[in-house]
Amino acid sequence: MQLLEDRIRRDGIVREGGVLKVDSFLNHQMDIPLFEQLAAEFARLYDGCGINKVLTIEASGIGIACITAQKLGCPLVFAKKSKTKNIAGEVWTSQVESFTHGGIYDIIVSKDFLGPEDRVLLVDDFLANGAALTGLIQLVRDAGATLIGAGIVIEKAFQPGGEALRSQGVRVESLARIRAMSVENGVEFC
Amino acid sequence: MQLLEDRIRRDGIVREGGVLKVDSFLNHQMDIPLFEQLAAEFARLYDGCGINKVLTIEASGIGIACITAQKLGCPLVFAKKSKTKNIAGEVWTSQVESFTHGGIYDIIVSKDFLGPEDRVLLVDDFLANGAALTGLIQLVRDAGATLIGAGIVIEKAFQPGGEALRSQGVRVESLARIRAMSVENGVEFC
Repeated sequence: MQLLEDRIRRDGIVREGGVLKVDSFLNHQMDIPLFEQLAAEFARLYDGCGINKVLTIEASGIGIACITAQKLGCPLVFAKKSKTKNIAGEVWTSQVESFTHGGIYDIIVSKDFLGPEDRVLLVDDFLANGAALTGLIQLVRDAGATLIGAGIVIEKAFQPGGEALRSQGVRVESLARIRAMSVENGVEFC
Repeated sequence: MQLLEDRIRRDGIVREGGVLKVDSFLNHQMDIPLFEQLAAEFARLYDGCGINKVLTIEASGIGIACITAQKLGCPLVFAKKSKTKNIAGEVWTSQVESFTHGGIYDIIVSKDFLGPEDRVLLVDDFLANGAALTGLIQLVRDAGATLIGAGIVIEKAFQPGGEALRSQGVRVESLARIRAMSVENGVEFC
């Protein structure tokens, strides 16, 4: 998506270690008019698929997932990263390995909000190793829901997550796919 | 706000220990058309205040904050609960005591996204002891930004946070204020 690639080129900052900072518009400060355009593109790509639920994971994906749910006219559910006393005992759960923070954490979704009647679009801000998306897909399958696909804002295509999921038959639509990036040369898109 | 009180009466579940479960529409599954009506009410209450930034804290407040920012036509910034390697060193930071999970955690906002030019509306889903809001207010003051007020979806008015903040001169607008609640009698509004 040209608009997004242009924005990443203009405002994204590449740091050592494969880090792309896009926190001025995507995952710390959120540019809502931009999100509306991204969400419209997800809606166009998945038009006619009968999506009736958007599923994301806390925290930075909630904003774009929220605007996407608005565009699709369906509710949003976000998977929580740990069990709190506000969640009843009946939850779907899976595990996610964190490459940013290290370690493994549980994600949970109440069984009340994910079931066989749901046709689910997964939405997240980033796809790199695919750990978060893989955890969400497990929740969808355990719930007996239908996985329609995933809508990703930025895919680090030089990391294996996207291709691994596509090779398993998961539809993954990424609005910007980064082929390579470096502090010296900036970002190159696929 | 009648619409919200009706929804809480219909779909909210009171649990022992002062817990109100509203996760079918507010803070796990999110009802976006409802959020649009709540956000419109925040916009009406703060009309003419020149708000140019919405500030919230991860994770469950991000959805309503996002739709409120959309309605106000300004960006949203969410305070993060711990330092990640994707945040540069230059951050505003304060501490928040968690009554839900126990313990104290740091919240941070990049100095790039909160400064003296900002006229800030704080948005969150719940106000009880006021710990999260107090932490956010500290960030706003440290940044030299102007605190316009807070927009809260549900205030537990039987807990001290709301009145403590109002007595300090903070404008707090809560769309539903709960006077008392119990498993036996349900929710009573102010």
